[in-house]
Amino acid sequence: METITKKMLVQMIATSKGVHPDDVREIMQSFLDVMTDHLKKGNRLEFRDFGVFEIVQRKQKIGRNPKNAAVPIIIPARSVVKFTPGKKMRQLVSGEAVDGDEGEE
Amino acid sequence: METITKKMLVQMIATSKGVHPDDVREIMQSFLDVMTDHLKKGNRLEFRDFGVFEIVQRKQKIGRNPKNAAVPIIIPARSVVKFTPGKKMRQLVSGEAVDGDEGEE
Repeated sequence: METITKKMLVQMIATSKGVHPDDVREIMQSFLDVMTDHLKKGNRLEFRDFGVFEIVQRKQKIGRNPKNAAVPIIIPARSVVKFTPGKKMRQLVSGEAVDGDEGEE
Repeated sequence: METITKKMLVQMIATSKGVHPDDVREIMQSFLDVMTDHLKKGNRLEFRDFGVFEIVQRKQKIGRNPKNAAVPIIIPARSVVKFTPGKKMRQLVSGEAVDGDEGEE
């Protein structure tokens, strides 16, 4: 198991596409920033094959401090980002046979 | 709430960066493909501020068909992609104050 950072991905794509790393970095950062911006507005991001990012509401819940279990901690209701992998991603990761393209863009 | 597709993101980035949409599309698709490829290998992807993608194992569980609750359905143990939003993403989405940069790349 290896940890891949943004920097490493930029380098891989620059090399495979023959594009200057600065140009790849700018587009990639822009991609992540625009995605964050849309999630902040409550929009849903849908990438065919890859998956969907969306905002879901989590209800208030009661947590416990493991060091002091007697004292409950109230975790307030909040909005969080949820990622649901696309069908192709699920199949690839679980080692199943991969179906053909799903036909949407 | 709006659904943003890859195509729409490509157009937004091409316009804001003054780059041809074909070039943005190629880098963005490459980005998603390389990410999928690393997740398939079991690697972890870490994007500062945005979040982390990693493979986690889900145990076998027993489900129920809502139309026929008497018959249990075995959902086998499997590998799935899990996304954990970064601190900045969590703060932006929940409307909290955003801390400064976290200092890692």
